[in-house]
Amino acid sequence: MGRTRVPVQMRWADLDAYGHVNNAAMLTLLEEARIATFWTSDPEGSRSGAKVLSGGPGSDTHTLVARQEIEYLAPLSYSQDPVGVELWIGEIGGASLLVCYEVLTPAGQVCARAASSIVKVDAGSGRPVRFTAEEREALAPLLDDPVTFRR
Amino acid sequence: MGRTRVPVQMRWADLDAYGHVNNAAMLTLLEEARIATFWTSDPEGSRSGAKVLSGGPGSDTHTLVARQEIEYLAPLSYSQDPVGVELWIGEIGGASLLVCYEVLTPAGQVCARAASSIVKVDAGSGRPVRFTAEEREALAPLLDDPVTFRR
Amino acid sequence: MGRTRVPVQMRWADLDAYGHVNNAAMLTLLEEARIATFWTSDPEGSRSGAKVLSGGPGSDTHTLVARQEIEYLAPLSYSQDPVGVELWIGEIGGASLLVCYEVLTPAGQVCARAASSIVKVDAGSGRPVRFTAEEREALAPLLDDPVTFRR
Amino acid sequence: MGRTRVPVQMRWADLDAYGHVNNAAMLTLLEEARIATFWTSDPEGSRSGAKVLSGGPGSDTHTLVARQEIEYLAPLSYSQDPVGVELWIGEIGGASLLVCYEVLTPAGQVCARAASSIVKVDAGSGRPVRFTAEEREALAPLLDDPVTFRR
Repeated sequence: MGRTRVPVQMRWADLDAYGHVNNAAMLTLLEEARIATFWTSDPEGSRSGAKVLSGGPGSDTHTLVARQEIEYLAPLSYSQDPVGVELWIGEIGGASLLVCYEVLTPAGQVCARAASSIVKVDAGSGRPVRFTAEEREALAPLLDDPVTFRR
Repeated sequence: MGRTRVPVQMRWADLDAYGHVNNAAMLTLLEEARIATFWTSDPEGSRSGAKVLSGGPGSDTHTLVARQEIEYLAPLSYSQDPVGVELWIGEIGGASLLVCYEVLTPAGQVCARAASSIVKVDAGSGRPVRFTAEEREALAPLLDDPVTFRR
Repeated sequence: MGRTRVPVQMRWADLDAYGHVNNAAMLTLLEEARIATFWTSDPEGSRSGAKVLSGGPGSDTHTLVARQEIEYLAPLSYSQDPVGVELWIGEIGGASLLVCYEVLTPAGQVCARAASSIVKVDAGSGRPVRFTAEEREALAPLLDDPVTFRR
Repeated sequence: MGRTRVPVQMRWADLDAYGHVNNAAMLTLLEEARIATFWTSDPEGSRSGAKVLSGGPGSDTHTLVARQEIEYLAPLSYSQDPVGVELWIGEIGGASLLVCYEVLTPAGQVCARAASSIVKVDAGSGRPVRFTAEEREALAPLLDDPVTFRR
């Protein structure tokens, strides 16, 4: 339990000359999955599920990426069908989350495993802002064991 | 008549430091709308509607962009809701199309108008490949007057 | 006279699966040439040559792109050597410039011609800000006939 | 010893709406530093220093990224001056390298530490291709202790 699956569209421009999604573009796919899961749609929007973070220019807090790790397990070819990003939380800290991912090709093969440490910060000062009890409660259903890497 | 509307997801990384979708990223949104409209899903895929072009690495023909023109009418802010790309064909040549677009913000405001001349070429030689009668018939329903620019 | 030549590095990620610089990425190369030519290095930086525009987050004015036109004349392959962007001003308006470009492959072949209308705006209000007499004087040496397109 | 420093140009489009180089774009900067260090300029090019890998479409072997880890230590703002990527090899395997990096802002502050496992593969089969004794010798001067992460 804990995982949510987010469909994310690849783009033709994500490919490089090897004909596969470029290694850096893969992190952009993860970013979109993260935003779809955690960000409220707009600063004053209703919050549903785990959508308890905000990040847009108008918001009081930002979400920064502190660390990322990714294993590329199979090349990802272009498809008009979205990849499926399985996303869950491997750890909840005071003001940070370890977000874990498995990326599935449209055919269902795991092509990448990754984890991002993200931190909720004050938009002005850049200082960490602790999650409220309410936010923790909203995030808890996504908790699961951290992703296991092959290394 | 003639127009189709293609929803295209923005990405957080499309924004630049002005907080709006970057001018070059807008062309990537158009590219995705074009692919969704014209490309068969896979080289041997069934062709429906205007999906008569192919472009993937495995295909016999490629689709090249020969010329583009774009007017940015309003800044486009990030939203988890897709932009709506109104897309139609302004002109069908022997081996080329003038693809026209109007990009609508999620709130429905026109934020860009554009046109791309694309050419169907042989994947090996790079030479133009004429549309077949069948392809012209499939493309015809998307024909409309070319986009009118403000300039 | 009038033209300046700006070397701009391609990136491997600019290529798409056709093995050439993607059509949208080409606009990013132009953007870098524009910034190198017109932006002061920092908000309080000394202004030399045509470096009379500013654009960074800390600056009072922004530079927006209002319109672009580009012709792709030859595919651009990856090279560790930079492209050469010939850049000049085709027209100076009250608060706007028509910036013209010819992009040369590292081997010296013209692979694209383009023009961008850019507007100097107030960072806060977004309203056009007229060039001062001093700025016009600094820009004048880059004036030449507007680029001629093939269309 | 072991380290080389590669200047890499940021781009305005690397920034996201927070006004800093986006987390995924940082990997693209690393990719350019890697290419500048390891790739021969062209398939038949003379090989100097550590330029013993090839990767272009015309080459027999490709360089794939198998795994990456990155820590973002400070936000990176836009500058027309390049970042300095300190690059070295933390480990040489049979057909793989652990490439280590420290990214310095133009002002000299370390803003990221990273490591990429890259694999030399046959362009056709995708199978690993062992480094020759000659290649190992060319790579050896870049060997140093693997990067130490904070985590």
